[in-house]
This record gives sequence, C-alpha cells and structure tokens, in this order.
Amino acid sequence: MDKKKPWDGRFDAPTDSVVEAFTASVVVDRRLYEQDIAGSVAHTKMLVACSVLSQQDGDAITQGLEAIRRDIEQGNFDWLDELEDVHMNIETELTRRIGDAGKRLHTARSRNDQVATDMRLWVRQSIDHLHGSLATLRTAIVDQAEAHSDTIMPGFTHLQTAQPVTLGHHLLAWNEMLARDANRLRDARLRTDVSPLGAAALAGTSYPIDREMSARSLGFDSVARNSLDAVSDRDFAIEYVFTCSLIMVHLSRMSEEIVLWASDAFGFADPGDAFCTGSSIMPQKKNPDVAELIRGKSARVQGSLTTLMTLMKGQPLTYNRDNQEDKQPVFDAADTVSACVTVMARMMANMTFNRDAMYEAAGRGFSTATDLADYLVRRGVPFRDSHAIVGNVVRHAQNEKVDIAELELAALQGFSGEIEADVFDVLTLEGSVASRNHIGATAPQRVREEVAIARQRISEGL
Amino acid sequence: MDKKKPWDGRFDAPTDSVVEAFTASVVVDRRLYEQDIAGSVAHTKMLVACSVLSQQDGDAITQGLEAIRRDIEQGNFDWLDELEDVHMNIETELTRRIGDAGKRLHTARSRNDQVATDMRLWVRQSIDHLHGSLATLRTAIVDQAEAHSDTIMPGFTHLQTAQPVTLGHHLLAWNEMLARDANRLRDARLRTDVSPLGAAALAGTSYPIDREMSARSLGFDSVARNSLDAVSDRDFAIEYVFTCSLIMVHLSRMSEEIVLWASDAFGFADPGDAFCTGSSIMPQKKNPDVAELIRGKSARVQGSLTTLMTLMKGQPLTYNRDNQEDKQPVFDAADTVSACVTVMARMMANMTFNRDAMYEAAGRGFSTATDLADYLVRRGVPFRDSHAIVGNVVRHAQNEKVDIAELELAALQGFSGEIEADVFDVLTLEGSVASRNHIGATAPQRVREEVAIARQRISEGL
Amino acid sequence: MDKKKPWDGRFDAPTDSVVEAFTASVVVDRRLYEQDIAGSVAHTKMLVACSVLSQQDGDAITQGLEAIRRDIEQGNFDWLDELEDVHMNIETELTRRIGDAGKRLHTARSRNDQVATDMRLWVRQSIDHLHGSLATLRTAIVDQAEAHSDTIMPGFTHLQTAQPVTLGHHLLAWNEMLARDANRLRDARLRTDVSPLGAAALAGTSYPIDREMSARSLGFDSVARNSLDAVSDRDFAIEYVFTCSLIMVHLSRMSEEIVLWASDAFGFADPGDAFCTGSSIMPQKKNPDVAELIRGKSARVQGSLTTLMTLMKGQPLTYNRDNQEDKQPVFDAADTVSACVTVMARMMANMTFNRDAMYEAAGRGFSTATDLADYLVRRGVPFRDSHAIVGNVVRHAQNEKVDIAELELAALQGFSGEIEADVFDVLTLEGSVASRNHIGATAPQRVREEVAIARQRISEGL
Amino acid sequence: MDKKKPWDGRFDAPTDSVVEAFTASVVVDRRLYEQDIAGSVAHTKMLVACSVLSQQDGDAITQGLEAIRRDIEQGNFDWLDELEDVHMNIETELTRRIGDAGKRLHTARSRNDQVATDMRLWVRQSIDHLHGSLATLRTAIVDQAEAHSDTIMPGFTHLQTAQPVTLGHHLLAWNEMLARDANRLRDARLRTDVSPLGAAALAGTSYPIDREMSARSLGFDSVARNSLDAVSDRDFAIEYVFTCSLIMVHLSRMSEEIVLWASDAFGFADPGDAFCTGSSIMPQKKNPDVAELIRGKSARVQGSLTTLMTLMKGQPLTYNRDNQEDKQPVFDAADTVSACVTVMARMMANMTFNRDAMYEAAGRGFSTATDLADYLVRRGVPFRDSHAIVGNVVRHAQNEKVDIAELELAALQGFSGEIEADVFDVLTLEGSVASRNHIGATAPQRVREEVAIARQRISEGL
Repeated sequence: MDKKKPWDGRFDAPTDSVVEAFTASVVVDRRLYEQDIAGSVAHTKMLVACSVLSQQDGDAITQGLEAIRRDIEQGNFDWLDELEDVHMNIETELTRRIGDAGKRLHTARSRNDQVATDMRLWVRQSIDHLHGSLATLRTAIVDQAEAHSDTIMPGFTHLQTAQPVTLGHHLLAWNEMLARDANRLRDARLRTDVSPLGAAALAGTSYPIDREMSARSLGFDSVARNSLDAVSDRDFAIEYVFTCSLIMVHLSRMSEEIVLWASDAFGFADPGDAFCTGSSIMPQKKNPDVAELIRGKSARVQGSLTTLMTLMKGQPLTYNRDNQEDKQPVFDAADTVSACVTVMARMMANMTFNRDAMYEAAGRGFSTATDLADYLVRRGVPFRDSHAIVGNVVRHAQNEKVDIAELELAALQGFSGEIEADVFDVLTLEGSVASRNHIGATAPQRVREEVAIARQRISEGL
Repeated sequence: MDKKKPWDGRFDAPTDSVVEAFTASVVVDRRLYEQDIAGSVAHTKMLVACSVLSQQDGDAITQGLEAIRRDIEQGNFDWLDELEDVHMNIETELTRRIGDAGKRLHTARSRNDQVATDMRLWVRQSIDHLHGSLATLRTAIVDQAEAHSDTIMPGFTHLQTAQPVTLGHHLLAWNEMLARDANRLRDARLRTDVSPLGAAALAGTSYPIDREMSARSLGFDSVARNSLDAVSDRDFAIEYVFTCSLIMVHLSRMSEEIVLWASDAFGFADPGDAFCTGSSIMPQKKNPDVAELIRGKSARVQGSLTTLMTLMKGQPLTYNRDNQEDKQPVFDAADTVSACVTVMARMMANMTFNRDAMYEAAGRGFSTATDLADYLVRRGVPFRDSHAIVGNVVRHAQNEKVDIAELELAALQGFSGEIEADVFDVLTLEGSVASRNHIGATAPQRVREEVAIARQRISEGL
Repeated sequence: MDKKKPWDGRFDAPTDSVVEAFTASVVVDRRLYEQDIAGSVAHTKMLVACSVLSQQDGDAITQGLEAIRRDIEQGNFDWLDELEDVHMNIETELTRRIGDAGKRLHTARSRNDQVATDMRLWVRQSIDHLHGSLATLRTAIVDQAEAHSDTIMPGFTHLQTAQPVTLGHHLLAWNEMLARDANRLRDARLRTDVSPLGAAALAGTSYPIDREMSARSLGFDSVARNSLDAVSDRDFAIEYVFTCSLIMVHLSRMSEEIVLWASDAFGFADPGDAFCTGSSIMPQKKNPDVAELIRGKSARVQGSLTTLMTLMKGQPLTYNRDNQEDKQPVFDAADTVSACVTVMARMMANMTFNRDAMYEAAGRGFSTATDLADYLVRRGVPFRDSHAIVGNVVRHAQNEKVDIAELELAALQGFSGEIEADVFDVLTLEGSVASRNHIGATAPQRVREEVAIARQRISEGL
Repeated sequence: MDKKKPWDGRFDAPTDSVVEAFTASVVVDRRLYEQDIAGSVAHTKMLVACSVLSQQDGDAITQGLEAIRRDIEQGNFDWLDELEDVHMNIETELTRRIGDAGKRLHTARSRNDQVATDMRLWVRQSIDHLHGSLATLRTAIVDQAEAHSDTIMPGFTHLQTAQPVTLGHHLLAWNEMLARDANRLRDARLRTDVSPLGAAALAGTSYPIDREMSARSLGFDSVARNSLDAVSDRDFAIEYVFTCSLIMVHLSRMSEEIVLWASDAFGFADPGDAFCTGSSIMPQKKNPDVAELIRGKSARVQGSLTTLMTLMKGQPLTYNRDNQEDKQPVFDAADTVSACVTVMARMMANMTFNRDAMYEAAGRGFSTATDLADYLVRRGVPFRDSHAIVGNVVRHAQNEKVDIAELELAALQGFSGEIEADVFDVLTLEGSVASRNHIGATAPQRVREEVAIARQRISEGL
C-alpha cells in the first residue's frame, strides 16, 4: 500500500515520527467511516451527473467504496496512522483497489468540506438516536407518574418540607425538563442539516458542480450559503453538545433526588438490586451507584462543552488544525448522554416507591401551614397578616412538639378569632393536594390529565 | 417603614447582620422592578376577575404599583437590604402607601413563581433587544461586503495563504455566523415565553385562579404545565446565556481577524482612530483595543455559562436559594453581549480596507496552485497526480524565488506535457475568484447575489 | 481638568463616545487606587535615587499622591471615564495639582508594568486577608469538633449509612480540606510576590533604573526576570482564582451537608434562626439559605476561573487589551470567597447539633456490619468469606425488620459457627468508633489529639 | 474464574446487564494496575508486620501479585467488565491462583482507600514525568535563546509593533512561564504525596494497623490525618489538572506566536517540513499543524479541569460513585500535556528563524519612537510633553511615508528645539535594544546572562 501523504509533493523532509503520531486523527475519526463513504458516493454521483467524472470512473469509485464499507463493517480493514485520518485511509485503499479512478475522487473537493460533511451527517444521526432514547425515558417516567397520581409525598423547597404534593406531579416535572430538551434537539437538528459539500478548501471550486444535488442525495435540508463559513463553522456541534450538557444537568437533578430518596434518612424509593451495587468492605451496603454515576457524568459533558467553546474562541477563518480536536468531545458527549438516558430509563421502569414513608414524611414539617394561611385569607384576613398568624401557630406547635392539626380548636382560636371547626378539613394531606386543582397544579386529577397530554406529545415526537 | 421580614412569624432570633448583607439580593435584582410590577399588576387583575380580590383592593394595588414604578424610574425610591429583594421592597412600600390592600397582593402567589415570572419577562425583552442589535451589525457587515464584492484578498487556512477570495465573500461568512445566532435567539425566545405565574411556592394554589388570563395579559405564549418545574427551572436563562456565549465566540473570531488585519505585518484594515487607542509610553502606537476587548469579553460570557450550568447541576427540586445566583451571570452576559454587538456594528461601519495590500498579499504564497491543479485535471490528469505535479512546481518556484505565474512556459511543461500556453489564464487572481461561481462560492457575482439575499433575510427578522 | 488622552499626539480623530464608554475600565479598576499610588511612590523614590528625577520633583510627586490618596479615601475624588483608567485619573489629577513634575512621573514606566504591579500588590493583600479568614473558619470548625469529639453519627458513603463515626471526626475532615487550601494560598503568594516594575511597555527602559530598589520598597520578594513575560503574565491571578475556586468547592461540600443535616429527614443540625430565612408564602418554613447560597456561589467562582483561563488561551505576547478583563473575575472571586468564608465561620460557631437524632440514625442501616465481618476475620475466616456471611446476616435481619444486634445469638450462629456470645460487644456504636483508634481514624481519643494538632497548625499559619 | 461481585451477599437480584456495562470502570482504571499491585504489596507487608496476616499468607499474596503484574505487562491478563474495576480483577485472579490467602488481602482495607492510594501514586509519577519533559522543552527554548541573543525582532503589544527586542529575550519569556509551571508541579507533588491507606471505607479500621509503615514503603511523604477526608478528597488530582491546564495555556500562547511567525505575512520562522503538513487540495500549502493542534488541545485540558471542579461541587462526604469519573479527565490531561510538551520540544529544537525578515519588520512601525521620547526627557522635557511631541513627529512621518530616522534633522527640530544631531544614535534598532540593559531587559548582554541562569535553574530541577 502506498503510504505517501496526499500532500507531500512540495516537501523536502519527511514528517517527524513523533509528529506523525501526534497529528494522526484516525484512531478517533475512523468512527466517521460510514458518513465519509456516503459523502464520497454522493459527491461522485454528482460529479458524474455534471460530467466532471466519467460514468465508468464513477461506477468504479462507488462500487469500490461500497466494498470498503463492507470490509470495515466486518473488521477487515487496516487503519494506518501514517495515512493520517479516515479520509485518506479510505481513499488510499480505494486507489490501491481500482487504480486511477480512485485518484479522481478528490476532484472538486477538499478534506475541509469533506470532514464538515461527515460531522454533520454523524451529528444528525446522533440527534435522531438521542431523541428516541429520550422518548423511552419519558415514557418510563410518565408510566410511573400515572401509577402514582395520588401517592402523597412532601414537596420540598430548600430541601425543607414545604407542602404536600403527589409523586405523579413530581415525576411529571422531570418529564417537562426532558420535553424541552427534545424540543431543543429538533431545533439543533435543523441547523445541523446543512450541506457544506462543494465548499472545497474554503472558496468553492472552479468545476461546474451542483451542490444542491449532492445535498439532496445525502438528505440535507439545505446548502451552506458561504464556503468560508462552511469549512470553519462548528456551531452545530457546539449546540448539540450544549443540549447534551443540559440534558445531563436534568439527569443530575433527578439522580440527586434518587440518591436522597434511596437514603436511610428519606427511605422513599428503591432503585432495585439490579441498579445498585455493594461495598467491598461493608456487607450491608446497597448503593445507588447508577444515579451517582449519572450525576458525576454530567460534569464530564459540561467539560466537553467547555472544550468546544474554548476551542473555537479567537480562531481566525477559515479551517485551522485546532478543529481536529472537535471530534473527541462530540463523540464522548454523545456516548455519555446516550448511555445515561438509556440506563436511567431502565432504572425508572424498575424503581419502587415506599408510599408509607412518603406519606408519613409529608405529614411532618407543618406542611399544611399554607393551607391554614389560605383559610384565614378566605375569611378576610390580608395574606401578610394571615402569614404572620400562622407563623405564630407553627412556633407554638413546634414548642408543643405536635403538628398543627393536632392542636385543639381552642388553641388555634387563640391565634385568630376567624378560625372555626371546619379548619381541620384543610389541614389534611389529601385535602391539601386535592385543593390545588388548576393547570399545572398537584391535584391527582390534574396529574392524570397531564399524563395523557404527555403521552400524546411523546407519540407526536414533541 | 416596616422593615420586618415577610416570613419571620415563627422565628425567635433576628437575622445575623452579616447574613442579612450576605443573602440580600436587592442590589442585583432591583433591576427587575419593571417586570416585577408588571407581573404584580397582571396577577392582581386576574385575582379580581376571579373574585379573590375585591375590585377596590385591586384598583388600590394597581394604582399604588404604578406610582411606585414612576418613583423608581425617577430615582425616588429607597432600596433597603433588610427587605431582601426587589419583591419585598416594592410590596412593603405598597403596603405603607395603601394599607391592608397591599397585604393582599401576595395572595395565591409566592416569591418562587414571582421571580421566575420576572426573569422570563426580562430575558424575553433582552432577547428582543439583542435580536435588533444583531440586525444592525449584520447590516453593517453586509454593506461592507457589497462595497467589497470584488476586492481580492488571500483566503487563509491555517493562517497560510490558501486561495484568493473576495473580501465581500469573507465578510458574508461573518454574517452567516450571526444569522444562525439570530435564529437561535428566536428558538430560545419561544421556550422563554412561558408563564410560571400561579405555580405559587411549588404546588399551585387552592384559590380558584385563572393562569391563562394572567399569562395573556403579560403577553406570554403559553402556561407552564407543571408547578414544581415552573419554580425550579432555569433552562431558559441558561439557553439564552449559551446563545450569548456563542455570539461572543463569533465576535471573538471576527475580532481576531481585525487584530491581524490591523497589524503592521498584514496591513489589510484600519478600524479608524475613533476605534483605537494609544500607548502611555510609545507615542507611535495605534492599538485595535476595541477588537481585543471584545475578544477578551468572550471569555467573560463563557464564564457566565459555566456558572449557570454548574449552579443547576445536582440541585434537587424545587426552588433552592442557590438559584439567587442566576441573576448576576444572566445580567452580565446580556450587558456584555449587547455592548459588544453595538460597538462592533459602529466599528464595522467605519472600517477602511487597504485594497492594494490585500491584492498584493493574495498574489503571494502560490495562491493559484489549486487552479493549476484543476487545469491539469481538466486535461485528464487524475487529481492526486495533478496535485503531486503542482507540488513539484511549487517547490521549484520557491527555490527560484518566483511565483508560478512567473515561470517560463517551457519550465512549466517540464513538469507536465499537458500544460499549454493558455495555462496563464487560470493563474491570475481575477480569473481564480471569477471561476468559483456556484452557490456559496467566492466569485464577485455570487457575493452580490448573497448580499441581496442577506438583506432580505435581515428585513424579515431571520 | 485636562481630559486629553495620554496618547493622542498622533491621532487625527477623537475617540468614538460609545467606544470611550466601552473601553473605559475606571469603574472597575479604581479599586486599585491604593496599590497604584504605592507603586507610583516607590517608582518615584527609585527614580530620585537613580538621579532620573530631581529630589524636588520627587517630593512634589510623593506629597501630591499622598494628598490624592486621602481625597479618594474620603470620597472627594471625581473618577472620569474619559480618562480611561485608575492610572490616568490619578496622574492627570496629580499634574493638575503640581504641574510639570506630574508629567515626569511616568518616566521609565508604562501602564503595562504599572497595572501588573498594582494587581500583584492587590492579590497579595487579598491572599493575606483570605488566609486570615480561613483561620477563623477553621478555628470555629475545630471548636465544634472538640465539643463533639464523642458525639456519634452515621458516616456515609453514597449517602447510605456506612459505619458509625464521631461528629468531631467528620468536622475535622472539613478542616483538612481548608488546611490544604491555606497551604495553597501560601504557595500562590510566593509566585505573586514578584515585581514587574521596570519592565516598562515590554522591553525594559533605557533609563538607569534600579528595579530591586523599587521592589524592596513595595515589599516584593523578588524581581521579574523577563520584561516581556512581566507585562503579559497573569498566572498569579489565575492561580489565586483557582485556589479560591477550590475553597468554594470545599465550602459547597460542607454546605451540601448542612442542607442535608438541617432537613426534616435528617434533623441532625440547626444553623440557628439568625442563619436561616423563611418563606413569603409558607409560614412554617425555616430554610438554610446561607448554606444554599454558598453552594450556589461556588458556581460563580468557577465561572471566574473559566473566564481567566479562556481569556489567556492563545494570546500572543505581550500585553493585549483582552487582559483588561482580568480584573472583574479576580475581584469578584476574592469578594465572593471572602464573604462566604466569613459567613460560614459565623454560622459554624452558632450551629447546634441534635445528638439524639444522630445517634439514632447511626444505629440504623446495619452500620456495624463491618465490625461483625472483622470479628469473623479475627476468628480466622478469610475476609471475603466473612463479608459474604455478613451479607447474608444483613439480608436476614432486613427481612426480619430488626438490626443485627437484635438477632438472637442462635440465629447469628446459624450463619457462622465462629460466632460466640462476645459478638455483641463489637455491635455497639460506642465500641465500633472506639475500636478505630489509629492515626486518622474516628475514635474520640484520636479526635481530641487531632484537635490539638489542628489548633497548633492554625496558630503557626499552616 | 469466579465472577461473583465482592459485595453481593445481601443482594437478591443480579446486576442488570446494561448497568454492569455502565458502571464498570475497568476499561479506564486498569491503567492503575501497577500502582494497585504496589499498594496491595505494601498493605500486605504491613499486615504481616502487625500480625494481622500470617507470614505464609503474606508471601503467597506478594508472590501472586508479582506474577500477575508480569502477566499484565506481557498482555496475558483477561480484564473482565463483570468484575467492575482494576481492584477486583486483580484480587479475583489472585484468589483463583492462591486460594484463601487471596481472600485475606482485603482485610483492613476498602476499595475507597485503595483507589485513593492508586491515584496518588499514579499522579505522583505523572508529575515527575512531566517535570522532566518540561526541562527538556525549556532546554530547547534556552538553546534557541542563546543562539539568538542578538537577533532583533519587533516586540509587540496589541500585535502592533511596539519596540525592538531580541529574539533571545522573547524566547526566554516562554521559559519563564514554564519555569513557574515546574514550580507549581513541585508544590502539587507535595500535596499529592500523602498516604490514604488505612482509612478503609471511611472511618479507619479496628485492626491494629501501622499506617506509617505502609506509607513509607510506598515512598509517601506523610500520612493523611483524617480518614473521611482521605477517601473523599480529590484535590490533588484537581490541582494537578489545573497545573496541566495552565501549562497548556502557555503552550497555546507559544503556538499562537509560531502560527503567526510562520504565516506569509510575518515570515519570521519555519517549524521545518517535519513539523508541518500539507493540504489535500492545495499543492503549495505547508501548514504549522503541530502548533495549531497544541493550541487546540489546550481547550481539551481546560475541559478536563471544568469536569473535575464540577464533579466535586456539592458532593457530601465521603466517597460517592461520582468520583469514578475523576480518572478519565486526569488520564486524558496527563497524556495530552505530555504529548504536547514532548512534540513542542522537538519542534523548538528544529525551528529556524528568518533574521532578515525579523530585522526588517522591527524597523517598521516607528518602533524607536519611545527612544526619541526618552531622548527628549533626558534633555529636560517632562515625559508627558515629550510623548506628545513624538506623537506629532510620528503623524508627520506617517504622512510623509518615511520612518522617523529618515526625517531631516531640521524637520525633527521643527517639533522640538531640544533635538540635536546625536538624536540619530538612539533611533537605530541596535542602539535601542542595547540601551535596555537592566535586570529583565532585552539587551543581548542581559539575554546571555539569563541564559546561564536559566540553565542553572533547570539543572537544579527548579
């Protein structure tokens, strides 16, 4: 095999061997082989249609590339560092197999528009895959939400008991976060779906090419309108990794809650033995490792986002070799998010909840104090005064070590003459959640309605 | 004025004075006063319509808030740290002015949904403002692109002379970046334009409120479908700051080029005396400070993005006080980007270009070598062979210290028998750029067409 | 007052007014006035000693600067944007007051080495201040550790009950983190304590200056050995902000634990009313806001670190205007960390712990399972087998809903014949913690020894 | 081989297969095998010395581990995901080979202190390796500085010609940056060199162990004083990656300059054919890819720092599975920096400089204007007036399109009566650099002195 560089005509000295290893990207970018071959086939067919290549050469190239694709898929392909990257590994092998026609493939093209095309195709596919995985996770969440539409738990602010809520309502909050992310993915996809092919090195080409034709055959939505921008822009990759990073922030929040809920102190949930691991020294341990690991991996994806933003900052146009470093963070972010979403979906589907522990916890922390305040307001007390009155009630109950509902009516009336016997109706957990019954609120009825809406949206790809 | 906290009914001990200063946010969040008052007015009108408040109380509140707004605008308002935040400063003053009605304003509301509403209104407005500023900058760029549709300059890859391009084409690459950003802003706006009002503390409220009514009167596009999510979600702010950060990456790339072009070595452009500053020690200096400062400020906005992502990571639902820290990075990012876009637009409009220096530079570095390679391909030489032949020509010319076009025909023919006298036609700069004449390529004709398209898109808000 | 720029001799056009506001740094850097004046005084005295300035001019400058310093301290100084920065505001005012001598101050100096000197003096002082604040916080922690040397609590891994530990031991872990940070501050200080003065614009100066003299009078430990590096290096600031960022990571970890401990589910600790705030809607709430806010602010300082690293990346030598953006993140990081350390120290000193709740929690979760495993090992069972046996015991106890210590001896012996009646001695919480009695372990005796060592190290500034 | 988990005694259900792949770390952490075995050997010997293990068991373990190490080194070891990590892979194989003794290895130890020990040993070694690589790079820089102690080039601020400097002086600025980094590595090493062994899971152990003995045999400088901190602290890794990140910032600055110097516009330097690559489409290209790639990779290491900081933020004590994610960023940062420093050293040693182009550029841009200003000051003109006068001279010369030195004496005297014929002596490049002859300044004599000092410091490991 001819291992000459595709560019060394003007060079006097060979590449330093350390440099060769340092600059070779094939260990990372060979992952793009499928996209690279698809791009080359589309380019070839366009060149034939535009009479830049003969039909005969075109056929030889297309068939040669398909054969190489099969060999790669079957593991029968030697990737060589000295051939630098996925592009030259494939082209060199093509020429070895089909001769001069192979040397014509790179007509009216540069590695600059070639790699931009490959990356866009890869990211587009990755977005579609992730969109599907998110739908699976959301479905698992919504199923649990339905099953727990009337399971009562404490709602927290500042990790302090605030008001009783339904577990189904809480889980639907998770679905909302992910629904927004799915929405972001769709937007990012549209900006990814643009063909750079034909931008060549940076200025376009003097051959009579048809960029719209090659774009169409690769399924691109549109054609990049500026060749300089087309080869130097990596926005689509950054936006994708940003969206991945935000998804991970959301998963990290869910994971934090799962870790809390699985703790001895809370005891709200059990991810299941299959989703926990133990300790090498402490025989009793059952650790929510999956949730912790997801939480930790959110930092990893954020690191990739930082890398990409810093990478592009201050780069003059057009292509600079710095951009070779865009692949690792994009691939790593995509892999990490995909694995985390998938494993989270399985864990969600298997998680069990301890209704009793949740109910009991919801009853602590004076969680219906707001209901008492609202009761007074309905009797004409201005909210701020009502709030202060209930504050005094809470302080008193705390000193007495009882809940508000356990105080005598007379004691309550000592704080406000507006209180009557019907006050105890609003101090139950069931009454509290049922009374919050408008759009977006926690009442079981609302949860069931939102479950139906969520399912509909998922099925529509929203 | 009553400086009691809105919540200290149950507290035995007063707030530590250091803590009071530490936790007070009013120095930052008073910037939200306009949004806060608008939100309170919308909330009040809804409560009246739903018969939770009397018309009389509603009118007193609305008029009181309007009066306070005017006082704030005129600088006649004392902001007090001990009243914690913008919300309590305004509400306390309202109650001081109108009495008990003021204490009823906070019915069916919490500071949690209140601040989320304020921030969404603020970000929405900031997006609209920035979208307009971007249009101004893009127009300045497109104007220069039109004026320089046929000005020839070297196109660079790796900061090495690659091929001749037109300056207009180069500038339109800048416009493409910013057009994508404008597009992202529109998407981010839609996800911002959602009303959290009515989510109350976290669970909704037991009052018979009409969330769609208050949303409509604030011009929101939709209503948040989950109250827990509504008070804990800051995605819209993160997405906005991400978009700001990407805009700054783009501005940093333009700035890098302006700094290069203004250097003695390049000498391509002069930002103008009004956009440069001098040295306190070196009398001859004229520094492109504005461009450098913009480049530096891109790091600042990236820092804000890091802050927001890290802030949200691992937070359990729902609202935690950590989120108070979301305001500073959002405000700072918005201010920074706004200032940079505005000053860049003025600088662009005033920049002058040195056509001669650009033309001369475009002629160096064997910039038409690719044209020679393409010439050979059109005569049937496979591209890879043609590339190697021209590499040898370049090495020869470099040793002779002449450009390719300065070599004798005989000398050229020594490298390939396919070369004939017409070769010199493709070796001119003008011929090179004119020959790249497809969508997205650098030919002057294409630049002029793209200028028209760009103007159209800007005028349509795209 | 003469508002001419110090450099506009060669400029034809005045600065654009938007640009003037955009590039002015005085609103931020006037905070350096004290360092700026100290640096100017030291520079002046050196110039006099080296006969570059007359004694008379030197005295006029020194006295003029001292008078300006007093005016600034008393708020009697007009800072003007059009004079750009702290340096030119002060120098212009000096010249207005003392005439020509003022125009001689900038001899053998540039703003480049001037601002580098100012920043190094400021950071050095900030390090010293922070080092002191850390000592105060560490003392508060160590005091609590001593008071709770034998308070038993559950030690956690994965937020699951792992083994009983002493609260004192846990708190000393916090001290260890901060002790390392204090150590890092000392290292960072040494690299900060280097004088750039005399580097002038970038190349040094042709005047016969004595850099070591001016360095000495500013208390610098050494003199920068390369003028180009001296004006372009901001490593000292980055390293300082990194250390601040790591301190904040540590405070965020403590804060996370305080939030957990103050939750209804844990109920381990109470930060005190003075360190909590309430809710505007929920009268019963007492939120650990201070801890949450510190946790949130850790994200802010990390953002500043990102800004500084990104700012410097890829900057060619020497000074570029980008570096003006170094001040805001440094000042903000220093302010934030200082406030957080101070308020954390006060909160630590006032925190109360619920020994009963901790003790009870330590008894849950089979926390002495490891002790049982070790018991078996001492009887000859290989550790891995012992671990498996105890795992079975735990599973059995969990099904029976009892703790291991509550199982009958016969039941225990059913799992291993090595178990005898003395097994119950190792299953008590007190026995468990007392038995871990080597360097660094949790036994109360060890905690008391470490308290003494920690106090000694703090007193030695370590 | 027994593939049971080391902890599944209490588990009812097996690990989900997706979870197993998700949580397995062995693909990353097997890189720690050498440190893991060294730690186990030290731990075993200590246990024997303390009579916790028999001599016979100790010998069997030690010999078994050594045999496994050899097998791993020779590639004869099957790493299994289902055995989770490097620790359990090795221990399981050990037990397979030597029986019950292998099950005793984990006595008085946990994977928590084990992995902390492994990482500290690995980072310590990595620091030492990097310190050596930096010395090699610094030597290459200093050699070039010596060779170019009197080569004149333009010194830049704002990328504008400022004053003439010597290339040797410029290169020594690079050495200064790296010397500080070497200093930081030494500090980070001391904080890394602390033994966590014996902290066990989190609380220490009830066995009579000797932590100082195992620390000594691993060459640790000291013993961690708090077991909770010992297993949860990753500061040493963060500090190391921070230092790596700062090194990369410095390399990115050098790389930026190399890219500029190698451009057609500057033409100052040639990295050599062995350190450049070409273009697949443009036959004439010779791109400074190595420098660009290093610049790009600086973003990657910054991403790893962000990951680690974000990872640790808000983690409660002690060990959480999140921390598994610390390894990839540490390994990647170490590999990246090592490769970049090594390849930069080779490139520096081979770089050639174009003295003529540098000299010519130094003569442009009125680089000696400061010298003229200083000349006037020495004749009694206050510096600010002198600066303004020279500004006028520059404006005049610029209009005349000549350098200052090319103006007639009479013309110069028209700007100031203080100017005499000797003025032309200070306007030469050689005179300018020679006159800056104090510590840290650019005169060739100073450069040679600093070269000697730099060599001495490198040889002393400073």
